[in-house]
Amino acid sequence: MSRGRRSRAHRPLDRHRFPADPWRLVETAYTGEDLGTTETLFTVANGYLGMRGNPEEGREAREHGTYLNGFHETWPIRHAEAAFGFARTGQTIVNVPDAKLVKLYVDDEPLMLGTSEVESYERHLDFADGILRRSLVWRTPSGKRVRIDSTRMVSMTERHLAVITFEVTMLTGDAALVISSQLLNRQDGQDEYYQARESDGTSDPRKAGAFEGRVLQPRHHSAADDRLTLGYRCTHSGMTMAVSAQHRLRTADAHDVRTRSEDDLAKQVFRVEATEGTTTRLEKVVTYHSSRGVPVRELLDRCERTLDRVAKHDLAVYHAAQREWYDEFWATSDVQVGASPEVQQAVRFNLFMLAQASGRADGQGIAAKGVTGSGYEGHYFWDTEIYVLPFLVYTQPHLARNALHFRRRMLPAARTRAAEMAQSGALFPWRTINGEEASAYYAAGSAQMHINADVVHAVMKYVAATDDVDFLKHDGVDLLVETARMWRDLGFWRSNGGEPTFHIHGVTGPDEYTTVVNNNLFTNVMARANLESAVRVLERLREMDPETHARVVARLRIAADEPTEWQRCAEKMTIPFDAGLGIHPQDDYFLDREVWDLSRTPEELRPLMLHYHPLVIYRFQVLKQADVVLALFLHGDRFTLEEKKADFEYYDPITTGDSTLSAVVQSIVAAEVGYHEAAMDYFVQALHTDLGDLHDNTVDGMHIASAGGVWAALVQGFGGMRDHQRRLTFDPRLPASWSSLAYHLSWRGSRLRVEVTQDLLRIELVAGDAPVEVEVRGKPATVTVEAPLEVPLEHQGPRIDGLLGDKPQTGGVRADGTKITAGVPDPVVISDQHDPYATSVAGTDPDADQP
Amino acid sequence: MSRGRRSRAHRPLDRHRFPADPWRLVETAYTGEDLGTTETLFTVANGYLGMRGNPEEGREAREHGTYLNGFHETWPIRHAEAAFGFARTGQTIVNVPDAKLVKLYVDDEPLMLGTSEVESYERHLDFADGILRRSLVWRTPSGKRVRIDSTRMVSMTERHLAVITFEVTMLTGDAALVISSQLLNRQDGQDEYYQARESDGTSDPRKAGAFEGRVLQPRHHSAADDRLTLGYRCTHSGMTMAVSAQHRLRTADAHDVRTRSEDDLAKQVFRVEATEGTTTRLEKVVTYHSSRGVPVRELLDRCERTLDRVAKHDLAVYHAAQREWYDEFWATSDVQVGASPEVQQAVRFNLFMLAQASGRADGQGIAAKGVTGSGYEGHYFWDTEIYVLPFLVYTQPHLARNALHFRRRMLPAARTRAAEMAQSGALFPWRTINGEEASAYYAAGSAQMHINADVVHAVMKYVAATDDVDFLKHDGVDLLVETARMWRDLGFWRSNGGEPTFHIHGVTGPDEYTTVVNNNLFTNVMARANLESAVRVLERLREMDPETHARVVARLRIAADEPTEWQRCAEKMTIPFDAGLGIHPQDDYFLDREVWDLSRTPEELRPLMLHYHPLVIYRFQVLKQADVVLALFLHGDRFTLEEKKADFEYYDPITTGDSTLSAVVQSIVAAEVGYHEAAMDYFVQALHTDLGDLHDNTVDGMHIASAGGVWAALVQGFGGMRDHQRRLTFDPRLPASWSSLAYHLSWRGSRLRVEVTQDLLRIELVAGDAPVEVEVRGKPATVTVEAPLEVPLEHQGPRIDGLLGDKPQTGGVRADGTKITAGVPDPVVISDQHDPYATSVAGTDPDADQP
Repeated sequence: MSRGRRSRAHRPLDRHRFPADPWRLVETAYTGEDLGTTETLFTVANGYLGMRGNPEEGREAREHGTYLNGFHETWPIRHAEAAFGFARTGQTIVNVPDAKLVKLYVDDEPLMLGTSEVESYERHLDFADGILRRSLVWRTPSGKRVRIDSTRMVSMTERHLAVITFEVTMLTGDAALVISSQLLNRQDGQDEYYQARESDGTSDPRKAGAFEGRVLQPRHHSAADDRLTLGYRCTHSGMTMAVSAQHRLRTADAHDVRTRSEDDLAKQVFRVEATEGTTTRLEKVVTYHSSRGVPVRELLDRCERTLDRVAKHDLAVYHAAQREWYDEFWATSDVQVGASPEVQQAVRFNLFMLAQASGRADGQGIAAKGVTGSGYEGHYFWDTEIYVLPFLVYTQPHLARNALHFRRRMLPAARTRAAEMAQSGALFPWRTINGEEASAYYAAGSAQMHINADVVHAVMKYVAATDDVDFLKHDGVDLLVETARMWRDLGFWRSNGGEPTFHIHGVTGPDEYTTVVNNNLFTNVMARANLESAVRVLERLREMDPETHARVVARLRIAADEPTEWQRCAEKMTIPFDAGLGIHPQDDYFLDREVWDLSRTPEELRPLMLHYHPLVIYRFQVLKQADVVLALFLHGDRFTLEEKKADFEYYDPITTGDSTLSAVVQSIVAAEVGYHEAAMDYFVQALHTDLGDLHDNTVDGMHIASAGGVWAALVQGFGGMRDHQRRLTFDPRLPASWSSLAYHLSWRGSRLRVEVTQDLLRIELVAGDAPVEVEVRGKPATVTVEAPLEVPLEHQGPRIDGLLGDKPQTGGVRADGTKITAGVPDPVVISDQHDPYATSVAGTDPDADQP
Repeated sequence: MSRGRRSRAHRPLDRHRFPADPWRLVETAYTGEDLGTTETLFTVANGYLGMRGNPEEGREAREHGTYLNGFHETWPIRHAEAAFGFARTGQTIVNVPDAKLVKLYVDDEPLMLGTSEVESYERHLDFADGILRRSLVWRTPSGKRVRIDSTRMVSMTERHLAVITFEVTMLTGDAALVISSQLLNRQDGQDEYYQARESDGTSDPRKAGAFEGRVLQPRHHSAADDRLTLGYRCTHSGMTMAVSAQHRLRTADAHDVRTRSEDDLAKQVFRVEATEGTTTRLEKVVTYHSSRGVPVRELLDRCERTLDRVAKHDLAVYHAAQREWYDEFWATSDVQVGASPEVQQAVRFNLFMLAQASGRADGQGIAAKGVTGSGYEGHYFWDTEIYVLPFLVYTQPHLARNALHFRRRMLPAARTRAAEMAQSGALFPWRTINGEEASAYYAAGSAQMHINADVVHAVMKYVAATDDVDFLKHDGVDLLVETARMWRDLGFWRSNGGEPTFHIHGVTGPDEYTTVVNNNLFTNVMARANLESAVRVLERLREMDPETHARVVARLRIAADEPTEWQRCAEKMTIPFDAGLGIHPQDDYFLDREVWDLSRTPEELRPLMLHYHPLVIYRFQVLKQADVVLALFLHGDRFTLEEKKADFEYYDPITTGDSTLSAVVQSIVAAEVGYHEAAMDYFVQALHTDLGDLHDNTVDGMHIASAGGVWAALVQGFGGMRDHQRRLTFDPRLPASWSSLAYHLSWRGSRLRVEVTQDLLRIELVAGDAPVEVEVRGKPATVTVEAPLEVPLEHQGPRIDGLLGDKPQTGGVRADGTKITAGVPDPVVISDQHDPYATSVAGTDPDADQP
C-alpha cells in the first residue's frame, strides 16, 4: 500500500559515515554519490558570503558554488503567453568566482578524491566556531603517503573575509609538491551544473530560470605581489563584484612560485621540494566585495584594504574571533534537548545554518536558501518573516531588525507593484532580490498577497519582543499603513441579507495546491491582524508622541477616515467557518472540492506537483503545506482549542507536506492539540529535511525556513511558548521520550533561559535585571533576577496517540447538507485500442495525398 | 463620460478612399499609414496558400506575409516557472519565401509607392473571382508617365498555384525598363516585423512567441530555364517546403534577362528597351508545396509538375476557372441584404474571407487568422467548430467534413494529452497546429476543456444537416466516445443532502476574463449535450447497423456500463441557476464577485487585458466575451425565452467584447429576445471588425471566426434560423431598416433559398427535389420543388428599444439574500508622499555603507 508522506522520516543519516556528535557535522568517508547534498551541508557562510562544501581540489561536484547575498543577474522573462503585469525581469543569484580552489599535485600526480587512494579521511564542520576542517592521508600511485590538513572559514567578524589553510606533510619519502591556488570564474562556460539546468528547462519548477550568454563581464584581472584579483560586472543587472586572494606559504623546504591571470582565472602555483616529515602550509586569505553598481576599480580598492588589514594579524586571530562570535551566538540561541546526541546534533545543525544564513546578512535579506545554493534563484520570500524572523527576534533581535529594515527599503518598489496591480498602498513581491516582483507564475506566486500581512506580523512580533519604538516610528509605521491600504482596496463589501461583510477575493494562501480563491482563511486572518495593527499603532503613537504622529500623518498623507475604515474592514472580515463540520474551510469554496485520498496515491507520484498538472491538483482538497493550520498557530488566540483540534484533524490527512514549510507547523499544532506522536513525527521530518535530503533537493541549498521552523517547533511546539497580544506565555508539550528541553529568549532587553522537564517549568533571567511578566498555563507570573520562576507541571497537555495518516475523513456533512466525498485522479494509461489514425499524431502533412 | 465598448462601431471606413461596391473591396489611394491593415484586407488566399496584400514592389510593409496552412516551426517553450504538463513545444506558422515580389525600375529609378509621384491609383479585390487588381500611373522623376497594371490570384482550382501578371506601358517617352521578379526568404533576418515582435515580448499576449535563430534551412536554390526555385527545411519541426516560379515576358520591345539564385533569394531580371505606347507584360506563375517531412527534392518534383501542367495553358484559363469556382461559391453562400451597398459590401467581404480561409484547406484545419497573417501563431482553436463550421455546414458541407476529419486525425494526440492531464478518453488541445497542446497559459487556455464538446457540437450539426452517417460511423463515433469519456472522468458526484449531482470543476469557459471555475454553465451545457450525443449515436447505431455497432464497441473497447454512466452524468449535470435573480450564473461562484462597472472604465483602459493584471480582472464579474449567452444560442431549446432575456440583460452590460468572438453572439441573442437596436449595433461591430480594424490588430490577420459569426448573425440572428434537435426552424428578426434578407441553406442534399421581408418569409428549393420539412414560428411546413413556402409575417419578434449600455444592473438580490454590488479597480497613481528610501527602489547594494 501507500507509503505515504510519512516515509520522509524514514531516511536517516548513515551513521557510520556521519557519526553523531552534538557539536559537529562529521563525515568519515568521501563518496561522489551524494556530492550535491554534502556540498550544501558543509557550506561555510556568514549570511553575506557562502562557500559550498566542495573539496579544495575542485573537480567533481554537483555545483561548485560561491554566493554573495543579493548579488544577482537579471534577464528578460519570456512568457510563452504574456499578460499585463506579469513579471518581466528575472533575477537570479550569480555563482561568483570560486576562491576555494587549492589543487595539489605530488610528483605531478593530482589528488582527486574520487579516484585517488585515500587511507584515512575525516571532514567536519564545527558548530562551535564555524570552521570546516578536513584531514586525509593520500597514498600516491608511487606509494608515497601524504597527509593533507585543511580548514575553511567564512568570517562572522569580517563579513567580506574567508580564510583557508592548506597543509601538506610527506609522511613517507620526499616529493615534488605543486600547490595551485586559484580564483576561477565557473559561471561563464565551465559549470556543468548550469549546463545541465539549461537542457532541463521543464523538469523541476523550483529550479527554473537560466542565463543566456555570458553573465560576468571581465573588468579586471591581476596576479602580483602574492595577490590574485578578478573583477566583473554583470551583463544585465550591472552589479559589480571583485574577489581577491592573498597567499602566504610557510615551509622549510625549497620552493618557488609562479602567478598568472586571465579573464576567468587567476592562479598562484607553488612548487615545493618537499622532504619527508616537513609540513608545507599555505594560508589563503580571500575577500569578496560586491555592489549594486560602483565601478569595479572601487571594489578593487576595497579588496585591497581588507587584505591589507588582515595581513597585519596572524590567522589565529580570526579563528579566535570566530569562536568568540559563536560563543555569543550559542549563549543566546542554543536549544538543549534531553534526547539522543543524534537529535542534539541535528538541532544544533539547523540553528547553526540559521546563523550562517543571517549572521552578517546585514543590509540584505535572508534568501530561501541563505547563501548555500542557487535554489529558488536566490530569492527572498515570505519565509524570512514567518519562519526565520521569530528565531532572530528571540535570540538576536538586531538581526531581525536588519531583515525588517531591508523590507522597509523595498517599500517604494512595493508601492509601484501595487499600482501595477491596480491597488492602493504597497504590495510586496512574492519573490525578489531587487524589490521587483520576479514571480512568473502568479497563481502560486503574485497571488499570495498574504506576504503583506506576513511582513507586518514580523514587525509586530519584533516590536513586542524588543519595545523598539524607534523602529516602529521610522520604518514600521510606513509598512503598517501602506499594507493596510492595500488590504482595504483589495477587499470589498458584500451584503448577505444582513450587514455587509468584508471579502478578499482572488488570492492564494500559503498552500500552493489551491490557488486564486476567495476569502482564504489564512489570508483573511492575517489581513485582519494587519489592519488592526495599523490602527492600534497609529492610536498609540498619537497618545504617546503626538508630534511624531502628526509628522507620520503628514508624510504618509493619512486621511482622517482611513484608520476608521481599516478598523471596520478588520471587524467585518469574512472568516469562513462550516458549522456542520465544525471546521474552518481553507477558503469560501474549498469544501466544494473532492477530497484527494492520498492513501491511494503511491509514493512514486510524490510530490504531486511533479506528477500532475496544476489544474488537476487545484480541483481537489489537497494541500502542499499547512494553511489553515498555520493560521491556528500564528493567531492561536483567535481560535478555541476545539476548533484547532477539529481543523487539524480535517487538514492533516490531506496535507502532503510537499513543501518543507509544512512539517514544522503541523508539528507545533499537533503538539498543542495533543497529537504528540504526530508532533514528534513531523518534528523529526523537519529536523532531517536537509540532513536526510528528505525532499530530494538539498543539492540546491539549505531549506532555511524549515531550519527556522525547527527552532519554532522546539520552542513553541514542545516548549509551548506563545507571544500573542504582546505577552509571553508558556504551556509546554515536552515529548514523553525527552527528559528536558532548554532554550533562551531575548525579551525587551533581558534574556531568559527556559527549561522544561516532565514535571517542571523553570525560567531564569540570565541577562538584564528588569522583572519579566509571563503567563504559565493561564496563570500570570514574574521572573526576577533574584529567583528563577519554577512551576510544577502535572502533565504535558492533552495526549492523543497515533498519527492521522493519509486517509482523509470523508462522509462528513457540511452546514448546507453537502457530503464530503473523496476521490483520486487515477494515472491514466492510454488503452491500446486500434486507431486507424494512430500514425498521424501531430500529422500535418498538407500534401500527404499528393502524388 | 465613458465612450465604452460601443465606440468600436464608430470607426467607419474612409469612404473616399474605400468607396462602397457590393462586389469589390476598392482602394483609391495608397498610404503607408495603415499598411498592416490593408495588407490583411487585400490578402488573396485559398485556405492553403495565403499572400498578404503587399504591393508588388515589396519594400515598406508591416508584414510581408506568405503563409501555407499548417506549415510551422516548433520551438521549446521556456516557462519562467514551469509545472508538470505545461505545454513544452511552441508551434508557430512560418512566413514562407515571398513570391509576390516584382520590382520595377524605369531609367534606373525604382517605383516606390511611398515616395514616388503617383498620378492615379486604384486597387481592388474582386469577390466575384478572387483576383486582386491594381492600376496606377507613375510619373517618374524625369517626368515620364508609366502605366502599371497588375493582378494577383491564388487559385481555388489548383491549391498550390498563384498567378501574377505585371504590365508596364510607357505613356510618354521611351525608357529603359528593369523588371526584377524575385523569390525572397524574408523569414530569416530580413523581416522587420519579426524583429519588432522579438524586442516587444511583453506587449500583446495575442502576439507572443518568437523564433531564435534561423528557421528555414536552405536545401535548394536554382535559377534556370525561366524558372526560379527555393527549397527549405524547418530547423526544429523538420517540415519542408519549396516554391517555384515560372516567368513569361511578352513584349514587342528588345529585351534580355538575367537570373541569379542564392540561399535566400532567386531572381530573374528582365531588361526591356521600352518604347512609348508598347506594353510589356510579365506573367509569373508560382507554386508552393509543403510537407510534414518528405525530402525537399521530392517537393521540387511536385513544383515542377505543377508548373509544367500550368505552362500548357493560357493564364486566362486559370482566371476563368477561378471565376467559375466563385460563381459556385456565391450560388451556395451569398447573403443578400436589402440595405445600403456599404452593408452588402461588408457582408460579402466577410463571406469572401471565409472562402479564402477554407476553400482549399483540404486536409488542414482552419486557423484563427486563416492564412492571412501570423496572429495567434497560425493556431487552430475552437473557433473553427463553433464559429466557422456552421457556415460551411450550410453552404459547403464537404468543407465542414474536411475540417472535422482533420480533428479526427488529431484524436491520438488528444488521447495522449488527456492522459497527461490525468483524464480518460481524449482532450483536445486548446491551441495547436500539429495536434499537441501549445497553450502556454492554462488559465485562459488548456483549462478551456469545453473544446471537446465544441468539436462534438460541430459533428452533430454536420451530421444533422447532411445525414452523412458514413462520417459518423468512421470518424464521428470515435470523437463522441472519447470526449464523453473525458467528461465522465473529469467531473465528480456530490450530494447536497439529496441525490448526488454531477459537477465539473476547475475549467474555464469561453469568457477568458473568468478562469478556472466550478460548473461553468457553458461548459456543463455543452458537456451534457456531448454525453447525450454519444449515448444517442451509439443507440441509433445499434438499431440501424448492429454489425458496425459491434465493431465500434470492440474497437473502442466500450464497456457495457459506459453509455449508461454517460446518460446519468448528463441527466444529473449541474446547471447553475439563481432563482432570486432569475438568471444562470456563469459558474458556481460568479455572482459572489463584485460587478465591474464598465461605465467607469475609460476607453483608454480597453481592452482590459492590456491594462490590468489577470488577477484584477478575475476578481470581478466582467466578461471578455459571451459565455452564458453563447450557451443560450447554441442550445436555445434548453432555455425559455424569459431566461434568455434575463440572462442577456444581466450579462450584456458586463460584457466588454474585448474578444471578437463576442459581438456576433450578443447580436444573435439580442435579436432573439427583442433588443433589436443592440442586435444591429453588435452586428455592425462584427461586420467591421476587420474592415474598420476595430480591435487594432487586423494587422495580424483576419478574424475568421468573427467573419463566420457575421454569417450566423445574418442567417440565425436576423434570419431566425435554428437547427436544434435535427430540425430546421425559422423565426425571423429582420431589422426595421432593412427591406429584405436572403440566404441559402444546404440541407440533406437539397439547397434552400430563404428570403425574409418585413411581412413575408419565403423558402424556395433551388437544388434537390426531396421535400424539406421545416418549422416556421412553431408551425411545421414543407418546402417542395413544386412550390416555394410562403409564410406571412405579422411582426419581426419582440421589440425592445435602446441599448443596455455599460452600466451593470446592481442592487439585485440573489436567492441566498446576497446583494449584487458594483465596483471598479481604480487606476492607482503613486502619491508623491515623501519617502526617505525613495532612491533605494530595487536597492541591493550590500556595500552601500562601506567606505
